[in-house]
Amino acid sequence: MPDLIAVDWGTSSLRGARLDEAGRVLEEKSAPLGILSVPAGDFAGVFASLFSDWMEPAGSVCLISGMAGSRQGWVEAPYVACPAGPQELKRHLHWIEPARIALVPGLSIEQGEVPDVMRGEEVQIFGAMRLAGLTDGLFVLPGTHSKWATVREGRVAGFRTCMTGEFYGLLSQHSILARTLQANSPLDEAMFRRGVIRAGEGNGLLHDAFGVRALALFDRLSPAQSASYLSGLLIGEELRTQELTVGREVIAIGAPALTARYALALGEKGVRVRSFGAEATWAGLRALQG
Amino acid sequence: MPDLIAVDWGTSSLRGARLDEAGRVLEEKSAPLGILSVPAGDFAGVFASLFSDWMEPAGSVCLISGMAGSRQGWVEAPYVACPAGPQELKRHLHWIEPARIALVPGLSIEQGEVPDVMRGEEVQIFGAMRLAGLTDGLFVLPGTHSKWATVREGRVAGFRTCMTGEFYGLLSQHSILARTLQANSPLDEAMFRRGVIRAGEGNGLLHDAFGVRALALFDRLSPAQSASYLSGLLIGEELRTQELTVGREVIAIGAPALTARYALALGEKGVRVRSFGAEATWAGLRALQG
Repeated sequence: MPDLIAVDWGTSSLRGARLDEAGRVLEEKSAPLGILSVPAGDFAGVFASLFSDWMEPAGSVCLISGMAGSRQGWVEAPYVACPAGPQELKRHLHWIEPARIALVPGLSIEQGEVPDVMRGEEVQIFGAMRLAGLTDGLFVLPGTHSKWATVREGRVAGFRTCMTGEFYGLLSQHSILARTLQANSPLDEAMFRRGVIRAGEGNGLLHDAFGVRALALFDRLSPAQSASYLSGLLIGEELRTQELTVGREVIAIGAPALTARYALALGEKGVRVRSFGAEATWAGLRALQG
Repeated sequence: MPDLIAVDWGTSSLRGARLDEAGRVLEEKSAPLGILSVPAGDFAGVFASLFSDWMEPAGSVCLISGMAGSRQGWVEAPYVACPAGPQELKRHLHWIEPARIALVPGLSIEQGEVPDVMRGEEVQIFGAMRLAGLTDGLFVLPGTHSKWATVREGRVAGFRTCMTGEFYGLLSQHSILARTLQANSPLDEAMFRRGVIRAGEGNGLLHDAFGVRALALFDRLSPAQSASYLSGLLIGEELRTQELTVGREVIAIGAPALTARYALALGEKGVRVRSFGAEATWAGLRALQG
């Protein structure tokens, strides 16, 4: 199998890796050239400037996952409906240069009368499955828009998005809570846990969020503690609506600082966590090759 | 009983009414001089400029409710702990000029280990009780920070705040939803109801909010419809955590455009609504006089 150029082209950043025949990472590159920062829609130009040297060897193939395949990206690669696994994605790769450069489609699903979508996370899930040696499991990809996915027999059977990270930003920077909250404080684990537990009581986020303000008003939370407590409330609220089983493992994929918070919160519920980082993306793109 | 000058001095506005012996409104005034707009903390000066003529008759008494009694206001009138009714508030009026001008304290409560507070709404509740001829009931005061209060034997027994209005502002103006949402659209009742019903399914606000984005992405919600649907989701989420009883009445106090939305949402749950506006404030301050 020829070398693979694996690219994760997201909203705010662009990362690439050159993998050898065995899937080992030979070299990595990244640039602050997310799809919102591509000048005049010149995706081909940005791609060439970063990866033309890697693409020189005959037979090199590049697979690109993430928002580059969205309507605002290079070319739209329409969503593939769940259930879907690597085979379904391979059949729907959107080739920009035949047998050379392809965009990986995202996944969509209908729940009730409301659709949900992911783009990029599906590749990380398939990569983590490979790395963990799993064909079934519950996966969480924390972030601005966290994704929870259920995998059965190697395919994503269902998933849902939670705007947890975005809510944290809105509340900590733009709401009344911002007055008494220091958003970039280091994690206070006790306060974070207290938030997770409070959210689990089911009073609802609209009410619990005001509690951050009230606790600060009575000097029972410092600005640094408020940040950890709010983070715990939000992640706790996210967990409240997941089907968790005590003793069962959840696979978390993302930046270590974030997956560590989910491991803490899930630990409160008696759920174990195994974490993966960027390596899941490369392994997932590798799974789509050939 | 002498004339009463009733003043509602909030965060962003200031309203006053002159009431006769029988509690009838003789005259009203308002100014965009909420406590955040008082120049150099000169509350006495602003008060005199607006109300000195009304205060001239011997024996005139002025009662001021709202944020003017907060730490950021004229003078802090400490919260009175629930359960509390008009008698408890009367005993804790904070007199600025003895027997002439007083600030009405707000209410506080502890729920679990988290406090909650209101300031101004308690007066509206006592006023609506009087106007409706009730000593028991469930009250909602929608707004930036909605209040739900349970009244038993003429006293507020419990209450909780929901940041519903503030969440609407954050999500419709500052989140990813803002891209496909027209915040000041007229209410689309069908879409609003759909949001209320969706929230009642209990998928959680963090997930349901992303549904607004996904529905817009698939052209199933127009920007105007998105606004009504999001409003329904948020009010529906607020209702999800209240103890509602089919056939029982809820008293809603606030601006007609807002109480109408709550009447629609509560109607979905089989709950009747009786609404009051500014008159509740004047009747409530009147109840604290003498």
